[in-house]
Amino acid sequence: MTGIAGAALTAMKTPGHTPNLTDSAPAAGLYDVINRRRDVRGEFSGAELPEPVLRRVLTAAHTAPSVGLSQPWDFILVRDAGTRRAFREHVLAERSVFASKLEGERAETFSKIKVEGIVESTLGVAVTYDPNRGAPEVLGRHAIADAGLYSVCLAIQNLWLAATAEGLGVGWVSFYREEFLRRLLGVPSEVRPVAWLCLGPVRELADTPDLERHGWRQRMPLEDVLHYEAYGRGRNR
Amino acid sequence: MTGIAGAALTAMKTPGHTPNLTDSAPAAGLYDVINRRRDVRGEFSGAELPEPVLRRVLTAAHTAPSVGLSQPWDFILVRDAGTRRAFREHVLAERSVFASKLEGERAETFSKIKVEGIVESTLGVAVTYDPNRGAPEVLGRHAIADAGLYSVCLAIQNLWLAATAEGLGVGWVSFYREEFLRRLLGVPSEVRPVAWLCLGPVRELADTPDLERHGWRQRMPLEDVLHYEAYGRGRNR
Repeated sequence: MTGIAGAALTAMKTPGHTPNLTDSAPAAGLYDVINRRRDVRGEFSGAELPEPVLRRVLTAAHTAPSVGLSQPWDFILVRDAGTRRAFREHVLAERSVFASKLEGERAETFSKIKVEGIVESTLGVAVTYDPNRGAPEVLGRHAIADAGLYSVCLAIQNLWLAATAEGLGVGWVSFYREEFLRRLLGVPSEVRPVAWLCLGPVRELADTPDLERHGWRQRMPLEDVLHYEAYGRGRNR
Repeated sequence: MTGIAGAALTAMKTPGHTPNLTDSAPAAGLYDVINRRRDVRGEFSGAELPEPVLRRVLTAAHTAPSVGLSQPWDFILVRDAGTRRAFREHVLAERSVFASKLEGERAETFSKIKVEGIVESTLGVAVTYDPNRGAPEVLGRHAIADAGLYSVCLAIQNLWLAATAEGLGVGWVSFYREEFLRRLLGVPSEVRPVAWLCLGPVRELADTPDLERHGWRQRMPLEDVLHYEAYGRGRNR
């Protein structure tokens, strides 16, 4: 059990909570999954993924909230080795594009970081956004066009946590041009590719995020992103 | 325990799984939370939210994956009654904008649906996206500018699930203009408002999503959003 899950259990015993806050088990388990979740690149084993497990993970994604209950996501399951090799070639070229912008320590640090496990993972799950689902009058989207895109991301996080809870790994690959992925998978022009997720059993989940372990960037404390009543106001300001 | 969680436990006992797929407890608990989660509008009690619980929920959000480990989110906690009343006025006006586009059965159905619990909830959590966090060279964002925005949504889903596990409710309000919320909360021009989340204890979480219960839209079966190897291909096509 992680520290935060332990803290959750302790805090739950504190008197003064409202009655519906006393059942700590679901929260502790969820926090454990949230803390163990990693963006996996190098740890995929390539082992078989039993169909019932894959089904549960996809069902979790499909159970996400969506603007106007539009469920505007699609999931393309890619096992074909040729398709995945072609995608990987493109991703490695885009990796070089990014690398060419870096200098000195940044270039050196990036050179050690693996950014994808496309062919080593058991399968790829390409996730897309269909703005026509539930249109024209999507409840809650008239003022914010991107609200549908946001829904797709909520589904991805459900998928990611479910996979983690099932002992699987997920790696979100974003070193690609949407147009390349669209053509590779025959995605219609009005549907937008949002993510390529590498999915499958892993040898382990790292304790620390790859980018932190390699010195690319450190995680910030929560307090740095909290504001009170208005943007820029700390608790005591 | 819900049906899917029970199914998860049963499936876990099937022989042939890899060793890291045998511990079913985290998955069953997570699926229960994912299934109980609702977009809450009418069920907020307004009861006090203990600080340690709020802290755990926000920590869960802050533990989400983010492109290049940029953690580009901010959370503005709004308890002030005046701010919330002002936001609610704006949201009700935008509700009318949407309603004016509807006719017949759609207009009638929508008229019965409550779209926000801004003042009834215990607090509002405005979530924003800061593209300058970790810039200029955000690892994984050079080809997809919106990848940072996607990260913010992953944090929101972590928050939503954590709140659900803690017995709280969350309602995502999207009937607003970003510029209004920016001015209301003093959000800098380069930072983008992504969501207003109503948060707090609830009397109950509905069994069925509000929009489905009111006949606005029905959830689709998973199979409708699955594609195999390429977009548009079913399992047997």
